[in-house]
Amino acid sequence: MLDIKNFLPGADEKINQLLRFAAEVDKMTAISRRTLLIDKSRRENDAEHSWHIALMAMLFKDYAPEGCDVTRAVKMCIVHDLVEIYAGDTFAYDATANEGKEQREKAAADRLFAELPENLAKEFRTLWEEFDAMQTPDAKYAAAMDRIQPFLHNTLTEGHTWKEGNPPVQMVNKRIEPAIETIPQIGDWYEKNIERAIEKGWLSK
Amino acid sequence: MLDIKNFLPGADEKINQLLRFAAEVDKMTAISRRTLLIDKSRRENDAEHSWHIALMAMLFKDYAPEGCDVTRAVKMCIVHDLVEIYAGDTFAYDATANEGKEQREKAAADRLFAELPENLAKEFRTLWEEFDAMQTPDAKYAAAMDRIQPFLHNTLTEGHTWKEGNPPVQMVNKRIEPAIETIPQIGDWYEKNIERAIEKGWLSK
Repeated sequence: MLDIKNFLPGADEKINQLLRFAAEVDKMTAISRRTLLIDKSRRENDAEHSWHIALMAMLFKDYAPEGCDVTRAVKMCIVHDLVEIYAGDTFAYDATANEGKEQREKAAADRLFAELPENLAKEFRTLWEEFDAMQTPDAKYAAAMDRIQPFLHNTLTEGHTWKEGNPPVQMVNKRIEPAIETIPQIGDWYEKNIERAIEKGWLSK
Repeated sequence: MLDIKNFLPGADEKINQLLRFAAEVDKMTAISRRTLLIDKSRRENDAEHSWHIALMAMLFKDYAPEGCDVTRAVKMCIVHDLVEIYAGDTFAYDATANEGKEQREKAAADRLFAELPENLAKEFRTLWEEFDAMQTPDAKYAAAMDRIQPFLHNTLTEGHTWKEGNPPVQMVNKRIEPAIETIPQIGDWYEKNIERAIEKGWLSK
Protein backbone atom coordinates (compact mmCIF):
# COMPACT_ATOMS: atom_id res chain seq x y z
CA MET A 1 0.00 0.00 0.00
CA LEU A 2 1.06 3.54 -0.75
CA ASP A 3 1.51 5.90 2.18
CA ILE A 4 -0.04 8.90 0.47
CA LYS A 5 -2.68 10.65 2.61
CA ASN A 6 -5.51 13.09 1.96
CA PHE A 7 -5.75 12.23 -1.70
CA LEU A 8 -9.22 13.16 -2.95
CA PRO A 9 -10.02 10.87 -5.88
CA GLY A 10 -12.02 11.70 -9.00
CA ALA A 11 -14.27 9.44 -11.05
CA ASP A 12 -11.57 7.71 -13.14
CA GLU A 13 -9.95 4.86 -11.19
CA LYS A 14 -6.87 4.56 -13.36
CA ILE A 15 -6.24 8.30 -13.25
CA ASN A 16 -6.53 8.12 -9.44
CA GLN A 17 -4.04 5.26 -9.38
CA LEU A 18 -1.50 7.18 -11.47
CA LEU A 19 -1.89 10.39 -9.45
CA ARG A 20 -1.44 8.50 -6.18
CA PHE A 21 1.68 6.86 -7.52
CA ALA A 22 3.02 10.22 -8.72
CA ALA A 23 2.42 11.62 -5.22
CA GLU A 24 4.07 8.65 -3.50
CA VAL A 25 7.29 8.85 -5.50
CA ASP A 26 7.74 12.49 -4.52
CA LYS A 27 9.45 10.77 -1.55
CA MET A 28 12.51 10.48 -3.79
CA THR A 29 13.22 14.07 -2.73
CA ALA A 30 13.79 12.81 0.83
CA ILE A 31 16.22 10.02 -0.07
CA SER A 32 19.60 11.54 0.57
CA ARG A 33 22.67 10.30 -1.29
CA ARG A 34 26.28 10.57 -0.14
CA THR A 35 27.20 12.77 -3.10
CA LEU A 36 27.41 16.50 -2.41
CA LEU A 37 25.75 18.98 -4.77
CA ILE A 38 28.35 20.84 -6.81
CA ASP A 39 27.61 24.08 -4.92
CA LYS A 40 28.44 22.07 -1.74
CA SER A 41 25.31 23.36 0.00
CA ARG A 42 24.07 19.87 0.94
CA ARG A 43 23.87 16.27 -0.24
CA GLU A 44 21.88 15.59 -3.36
CA ASN A 45 18.75 13.51 -3.23
CA ASP A 46 17.50 10.74 -5.50
CA ALA A 47 15.09 12.95 -7.45
CA GLU A 48 17.86 15.43 -8.29
CA HIS A 49 20.32 12.67 -9.11
CA SER A 50 17.83 10.89 -11.38
CA TRP A 51 17.08 14.11 -13.25
CA HIS A 52 20.77 14.89 -13.56
CA ILE A 53 21.74 11.55 -15.11
CA ALA A 54 18.67 11.56 -17.39
CA LEU A 55 19.86 14.91 -18.72
CA MET A 56 23.41 13.58 -19.05
CA ALA A 57 22.06 10.67 -21.09
CA MET A 58 20.66 13.29 -23.47
CA LEU A 59 24.00 15.16 -23.51
CA PHE A 60 26.26 12.19 -24.24
CA LYS A 61 24.08 10.62 -26.94
CA ASP A 62 26.83 10.82 -29.59
CA TYR A 63 28.85 8.47 -27.35
CA ALA A 64 26.11 5.90 -26.78
CA PRO A 65 27.24 2.34 -27.62
CA GLU A 66 26.03 0.58 -30.74
CA GLY A 67 22.49 -0.69 -30.44
CA CYS A 68 21.60 1.74 -27.64
CA ASP A 69 18.20 3.42 -27.75
CA VAL A 70 19.10 6.69 -26.00
CA THR A 71 15.51 7.68 -25.19
CA ARG A 72 14.96 4.32 -23.51
CA ALA A 73 18.17 4.84 -21.52
CA VAL A 74 16.81 8.25 -20.47
CA LYS A 75 13.71 6.51 -19.09
CA MET A 76 15.93 4.02 -17.28
CA CYS A 77 17.72 6.92 -15.60
CA ILE A 78 14.38 8.35 -14.48
CA VAL A 79 13.20 5.14 -12.79
CA HIS A 80 16.48 3.45 -11.79
CA ASP A 81 16.39 4.54 -8.12
CA LEU A 82 12.63 4.43 -7.46
CA VAL A 83 12.91 1.35 -5.25
CA GLU A 84 15.01 3.41 -2.83
CA ILE A 85 11.89 5.17 -1.53
CA TYR A 86 11.34 1.95 0.43
CA ALA A 87 14.85 0.41 0.39
CA GLY A 88 16.91 3.56 1.05
CA ASP A 89 20.14 4.59 -0.66
CA THR A 90 23.11 2.26 -0.17
CA PHE A 91 26.53 3.90 -0.08
CA ALA A 92 28.69 2.35 -2.81
CA TYR A 93 31.75 2.31 -0.55
CA ASP A 94 30.11 0.60 2.43
CA ALA A 95 30.57 -3.18 2.07
CA THR A 96 28.36 -4.09 5.06
CA ALA A 97 25.45 -1.98 3.85
CA ASN A 98 25.74 -3.53 0.40
CA GLU A 99 25.26 -7.06 1.75
CA GLY A 100 21.48 -7.04 2.05
CA LYS A 101 20.97 -4.58 -0.80
CA GLU A 102 19.67 -6.92 -3.47
CA GLN A 103 17.01 -8.52 -1.30
CA ARG A 104 15.98 -5.17 0.21
CA GLU A 105 15.54 -3.62 -3.21
CA LYS A 106 13.66 -6.59 -4.60
CA ALA A 107 11.14 -6.40 -1.75
CA ALA A 108 10.81 -2.65 -2.35
CA ALA A 109 10.22 -3.23 -6.07
CA ASP A 110 7.53 -5.83 -5.31
CA ARG A 111 5.75 -3.35 -3.07
CA LEU A 112 6.11 -0.28 -5.28
CA PHE A 113 5.45 -1.63 -8.76
CA ALA A 114 2.38 -3.55 -7.54
CA GLU A 115 0.69 -0.15 -7.25
CA LEU A 116 0.90 0.49 -10.99
CA PRO A 117 -1.44 -0.63 -13.79
CA GLU A 118 -0.12 -3.87 -15.24
CA ASN A 119 1.50 -2.49 -18.41
CA LEU A 120 3.39 0.18 -16.46
CA ALA A 121 4.38 -2.23 -13.68
CA LYS A 122 5.94 -4.44 -16.30
CA GLU A 123 7.69 -1.56 -18.07
CA PHE A 124 9.11 -0.01 -14.88
CA ARG A 125 10.25 -3.34 -13.49
CA THR A 126 11.94 -4.30 -16.76
CA LEU A 127 13.73 -0.97 -16.97
CA TRP A 128 14.91 -1.25 -13.37
CA GLU A 129 16.06 -4.88 -13.59
CA GLU A 130 17.75 -4.29 -16.93
CA PHE A 131 19.55 -1.23 -15.55
CA ASP A 132 20.80 -3.18 -12.57
CA ALA A 133 22.08 -6.08 -14.67
CA MET A 134 24.14 -3.73 -16.91
CA GLN A 135 24.14 -6.18 -19.83
CA THR A 136 22.23 -4.47 -22.65
CA PRO A 137 23.52 -1.40 -24.55
CA ASP A 138 20.74 0.75 -23.02
CA ALA A 139 21.64 -0.37 -19.49
CA LYS A 140 25.38 0.01 -20.04
CA TYR A 141 24.88 3.54 -21.27
CA ALA A 142 22.46 4.54 -18.47
CA ALA A 143 24.73 2.92 -15.86
CA ALA A 144 27.70 4.85 -17.29
CA MET A 145 25.84 8.10 -16.53
CA ASP A 146 25.12 6.80 -13.02
CA ARG A 147 28.87 6.24 -12.43
CA ILE A 148 30.21 9.35 -14.21
CA GLN A 149 27.88 11.79 -12.42
CA PRO A 150 29.02 11.14 -8.81
CA PHE A 151 32.64 11.04 -10.01
CA LEU A 152 32.13 14.46 -11.63
CA HIS A 153 30.64 15.75 -8.36
CA ASN A 154 33.57 14.35 -6.38
CA THR A 155 36.10 16.07 -8.65
CA LEU A 156 34.31 19.39 -8.03
CA THR A 157 33.71 19.00 -4.29
CA GLU A 158 37.24 18.13 -3.18
CA GLY A 159 36.51 14.42 -3.15
CA HIS A 160 33.68 14.69 -0.65
CA THR A 161 32.45 11.08 -0.69
CA TRP A 162 35.96 9.68 -1.07
CA LYS A 163 37.01 11.43 2.11
CA GLU A 164 33.86 10.16 3.80
CA GLY A 165 34.03 6.53 2.64
CA ASN A 166 37.81 6.37 2.25
CA PRO A 167 37.81 3.76 -0.52
CA PRO A 168 41.17 2.66 -1.93
CA VAL A 169 41.68 4.00 -5.45
CA GLN A 170 41.29 0.46 -6.83
CA MET A 171 37.69 0.43 -5.62
CA VAL A 172 36.98 3.75 -7.32
CA ASN A 173 38.60 2.42 -10.50
CA LYS A 174 36.47 -0.68 -10.35
CA ARG A 175 33.31 1.38 -10.05
CA ILE A 176 34.13 3.52 -13.09
CA GLU A 177 35.43 0.62 -15.21
CA PRO A 178 32.14 -0.26 -16.94
CA ALA A 179 31.59 3.43 -17.74
CA ILE A 180 34.99 3.70 -19.43
CA GLU A 181 34.34 0.46 -21.30
CA THR A 182 31.12 1.99 -22.60
CA ILE A 183 32.54 5.48 -23.28
CA PRO A 184 36.32 5.14 -23.68
CA GLN A 185 36.58 8.87 -24.51
CA ILE A 186 36.12 9.76 -20.82
CA GLY A 187 39.20 7.72 -19.86
CA ASP A 188 41.74 10.53 -20.04
CA TRP A 189 39.57 12.93 -18.03
CA TYR A 190 39.10 10.19 -15.45
CA GLU A 191 42.83 9.44 -15.18
CA LYS A 192 43.80 13.11 -14.80
CA ASN A 193 41.24 13.62 -12.09
CA ILE A 194 42.28 10.49 -10.19
CA GLU A 195 45.88 11.75 -10.26
CA ARG A 196 44.82 15.14 -8.88
CA ALA A 197 42.66 13.50 -6.22
CA ILE A 198 45.62 11.44 -4.98
CA GLU A 199 47.95 14.45 -5.11
CA LYS A 200 45.51 16.54 -3.10
CA GLY A 201 44.94 13.75 -0.59
CA TRP A 202 41.23 13.39 -1.40
CA LEU A 203 41.80 9.75 -2.25
CA SER A 204 44.37 7.33 -0.90
CA LYS A 205 46.33 4.77 -2.90
CA MET B 1 30.40 31.54 -20.19
CA LEU B 2 29.68 28.83 -17.68
CA ASP B 3 30.39 29.56 -14.02
CA ILE B 4 31.78 26.13 -13.22
CA LYS B 5 35.12 26.27 -11.35
CA ASN B 6 37.96 23.81 -10.73
CA PHE B 7 37.03 21.59 -13.62
CA LEU B 8 40.10 19.59 -14.64
CA PRO B 9 39.74 18.78 -18.34
CA GLY B 10 40.89 15.64 -20.14
CA ALA B 11 42.14 15.26 -23.70
CA ASP B 12 38.77 15.16 -25.49
CA GLU B 13 37.40 18.69 -26.01
CA LYS B 14 33.82 17.65 -26.68
CA ILE B 15 33.75 15.41 -23.61
CA ASN B 16 35.06 18.33 -21.56
CA GLN B 17 32.33 20.57 -22.97
CA LEU B 18 29.60 18.09 -22.07
CA LEU B 19 30.95 17.47 -18.56
CA ARG B 20 31.18 21.22 -17.89
CA PHE B 21 27.63 21.67 -19.06
CA ALA B 22 26.47 18.78 -16.86
CA ALA B 23 28.20 20.42 -13.89
CA GLU B 24 26.72 23.86 -14.64
CA VAL B 25 23.13 22.65 -14.78
CA ASP B 26 23.45 21.10 -11.32
CA LYS B 27 22.43 24.68 -10.38
CA MET B 28 18.86 23.57 -11.06
CA THR B 29 18.95 22.14 -7.54
CA ALA B 30 19.25 25.71 -6.20
CA ILE B 31 16.32 27.16 -8.15
CA SER B 32 13.48 27.10 -5.68
CA ARG B 33 9.87 26.91 -6.86
CA ARG B 34 6.81 28.07 -4.94
CA THR B 35 5.39 24.55 -4.80
CA LEU B 36 5.88 22.67 -1.53
CA LEU B 37 7.12 19.08 -1.54
CA ILE B 38 4.32 16.69 -0.63
CA ASP B 39 5.98 15.93 2.72
CA LYS B 40 5.81 19.74 3.35
CA SER B 41 9.46 19.81 4.47
CA ARG B 42 10.44 22.59 2.06
CA ARG B 43 9.83 24.00 -1.40
CA GLU B 44 10.74 21.83 -4.33
CA ASN B 45 13.49 22.86 -6.70
CA ASP B 46 13.67 22.79 -10.49
CA ALA B 47 15.71 19.56 -10.66
CA GLU B 48 13.16 17.69 -8.52
CA HIS B 49 10.23 19.18 -10.41
CA SER B 50 11.73 18.29 -13.79
CA TRP B 51 12.35 14.72 -12.70
CA HIS B 52 8.85 14.47 -11.27
CA ILE B 53 7.05 15.60 -14.43
CA ALA B 54 9.33 13.47 -16.64
CA LEU B 55 8.27 10.45 -14.59
CA MET B 56 4.62 11.54 -14.79
CA ALA B 57 4.96 11.71 -18.57
CA MET B 58 5.95 8.04 -18.42
CA LEU B 59 3.03 7.25 -16.10
CA PHE B 60 0.28 8.92 -18.13
CA LYS B 61 1.38 7.62 -21.53
CA ASP B 62 -1.95 5.87 -22.20
CA TYR B 63 -3.55 9.33 -22.05
CA ALA B 64 -1.13 11.07 -24.42
CA PRO B 65 -2.91 12.87 -27.26
CA GLU B 66 -2.88 11.53 -30.80
CA GLY B 67 0.40 12.11 -32.57
CA CYS B 68 2.35 12.51 -29.31
CA ASP B 69 5.79 10.90 -29.07
CA VAL B 70 5.86 10.21 -25.33
CA THR B 71 9.63 9.71 -25.09
CA ARG B 72 10.18 13.08 -26.79
CA ALA B 73 7.75 14.65 -24.30
CA VAL B 74 9.80 13.05 -21.50
CA LYS B 75 12.89 14.80 -22.85
CA MET B 76 10.96 18.07 -23.01
CA CYS B 77 10.11 17.69 -19.33
CA ILE B 78 13.80 17.17 -18.51
CA VAL B 79 14.97 20.35 -20.26
CA HIS B 80 11.91 22.64 -20.00
CA ASP B 81 13.16 24.67 -17.03
CA LEU B 82 16.92 24.74 -17.76
CA VAL B 83 16.86 28.43 -18.69
CA GLU B 84 15.81 29.21 -15.11
CA ILE B 85 19.37 28.62 -13.89
CA TYR B 86 20.03 32.12 -15.30
CA ALA B 87 16.48 33.54 -15.50
CA GLY B 88 15.11 32.27 -12.16
CA ASP B 89 11.70 30.76 -11.50
CA THR B 90 8.71 33.02 -12.13
CA PHE B 91 5.69 32.48 -9.86
CA ALA B 92 2.66 31.72 -12.06
CA TYR B 93 0.40 33.85 -9.87
CA ASP B 94 2.56 36.99 -9.84
CA ALA B 95 1.51 39.20 -12.76
CA THR B 96 4.31 41.76 -12.30
CA ALA B 97 7.04 39.11 -12.26
CA ASN B 98 5.59 37.56 -15.41
CA GLU B 99 5.94 40.80 -17.40
CA GLY B 100 9.64 40.50 -18.25
CA LYS B 101 9.65 36.69 -18.23
CA GLU B 102 9.81 36.03 -21.97
CA GLN B 103 12.75 38.33 -22.63
CA ARG B 104 14.60 37.17 -19.50
CA GLU B 105 14.27 33.53 -20.47
CA LYS B 106 15.28 34.16 -24.08
CA ALA B 107 18.51 35.84 -22.92
CA ALA B 108 19.14 32.92 -20.55
CA ALA B 109 18.58 30.42 -23.37
CA ASP B 110 21.00 32.31 -25.63
CA ARG B 111 23.66 32.16 -22.93
CA LEU B 112 23.10 28.57 -21.84
CA PHE B 113 22.57 26.74 -25.10
CA ALA B 114 25.58 28.48 -26.69
CA GLU B 115 27.72 26.28 -24.43
CA LEU B 116 26.54 23.08 -26.12
CA PRO B 117 27.84 21.40 -29.28
CA GLU B 118 25.75 22.60 -32.23
CA ASN B 119 23.52 19.53 -32.63
CA LEU B 120 22.60 19.51 -28.93
CA ALA B 121 22.13 23.30 -28.81
CA LYS B 122 19.61 22.97 -31.60
CA GLU B 123 17.83 20.00 -30.00
CA PHE B 124 17.59 21.56 -26.53
CA ARG B 125 16.45 24.92 -27.88
CA THR B 126 13.80 23.32 -30.08
CA LEU B 127 12.47 21.23 -27.18
CA TRP B 128 12.34 24.28 -24.92
CA GLU B 129 10.69 26.61 -27.46
CA GLU B 130 8.23 23.96 -28.53
CA PHE B 131 7.31 23.24 -24.90
CA ASP B 132 6.70 26.92 -24.23
CA ALA B 133 4.52 27.40 -27.31
CA MET B 134 2.24 24.45 -26.31
CA GLN B 135 1.08 23.86 -29.88
CA THR B 136 2.33 20.37 -30.81
CA PRO B 137 0.98 17.12 -29.28
CA ASP B 138 4.35 16.52 -27.54
CA ALA B 139 4.33 20.01 -26.02
CA LYS B 140 0.68 19.84 -25.03
CA TYR B 141 1.28 16.56 -23.22
CA ALA B 142 4.48 17.71 -21.49
CA ALA B 143 2.85 21.00 -20.51
CA ALA B 144 -0.11 19.08 -19.08
CA MET B 145 2.30 17.30 -16.72
CA ASP B 146 3.80 20.69 -15.79
CA ARG B 147 0.33 21.96 -14.81
CA ILE B 148 -1.04 18.81 -13.17
CA GLN B 149 2.00 18.27 -10.92
CA PRO B 150 1.86 21.55 -8.93
CA PHE B 151 -1.94 21.18 -8.71
CA LEU B 152 -1.46 17.70 -7.25
CA HIS B 153 1.03 19.13 -4.74
CA ASN B 154 -1.38 21.90 -3.78
CA THR B 155 -4.19 19.42 -3.14
CA LEU B 156 -1.88 17.50 -0.78
CA THR B 157 -0.31 20.50 1.00
CA GLU B 158 -3.48 22.35 1.99
CA GLY B 159 -3.26 24.67 -0.99
CA HIS B 160 0.17 26.01 -0.09
CA THR B 161 0.85 28.16 -3.18
CA TRP B 162 -2.78 29.23 -3.46
CA LYS B 163 -2.66 30.62 0.05
CA GLU B 164 0.65 32.30 -0.79
CA GLY B 165 -0.31 33.79 -4.16
CA ASN B 166 -4.04 34.10 -3.43
CA PRO B 167 -5.17 33.72 -7.06
CA PRO B 168 -8.91 33.82 -7.77
CA VAL B 169 -10.21 30.38 -8.73
CA GLN B 170 -10.69 31.58 -12.32
CA MET B 171 -6.92 32.04 -12.63
CA VAL B 172 -6.29 28.50 -11.35
CA ASN B 173 -8.90 27.19 -13.79
CA LYS B 174 -7.25 29.03 -16.64
CA ARG B 175 -3.89 27.49 -15.81
CA ILE B 176 -5.24 23.93 -15.77
CA GLU B 177 -7.45 24.39 -18.85
CA PRO B 178 -4.91 23.24 -21.47
CA ALA B 179 -4.13 20.17 -19.32
CA ILE B 180 -7.81 19.18 -19.18
CA GLU B 181 -8.16 19.79 -22.91
CA THR B 182 -5.24 17.39 -23.44
CA ILE B 183 -6.31 14.81 -20.82
CA PRO B 184 -10.08 15.22 -20.25
CA GLN B 185 -10.04 12.22 -17.89
CA ILE B 186 -8.47 14.36 -15.14
CA GLY B 187 -11.39 16.81 -15.24
CA ASP B 188 -13.48 15.21 -12.52
CA TRP B 189 -10.53 14.87 -10.12
CA TYR B 190 -9.73 18.51 -10.77
CA GLU B 191 -13.30 19.71 -10.13
CA LYS B 192 -13.66 17.77 -6.88
CA ASN B 193 -10.36 19.12 -5.60
CA ILE B 194 -11.23 22.69 -6.51
CA GLU B 195 -14.51 22.31 -4.60
CA ARG B 196 -12.67 21.01 -1.53
CA ALA B 197 -10.08 23.80 -1.79
CA ILE B 198 -12.84 26.45 -1.76
CA GLU B 199 -14.70 24.73 1.08
CA LYS B 200 -11.52 24.56 3.15
CA GLY B 201 -10.64 28.18 2.41
CA TRP B 202 -7.38 27.28 0.63
CA LEU B 203 -8.64 29.07 -2.47
CA SER B 204 -11.06 32.00 -2.76
CA LYS B 205 -13.79 32.41 -5.33
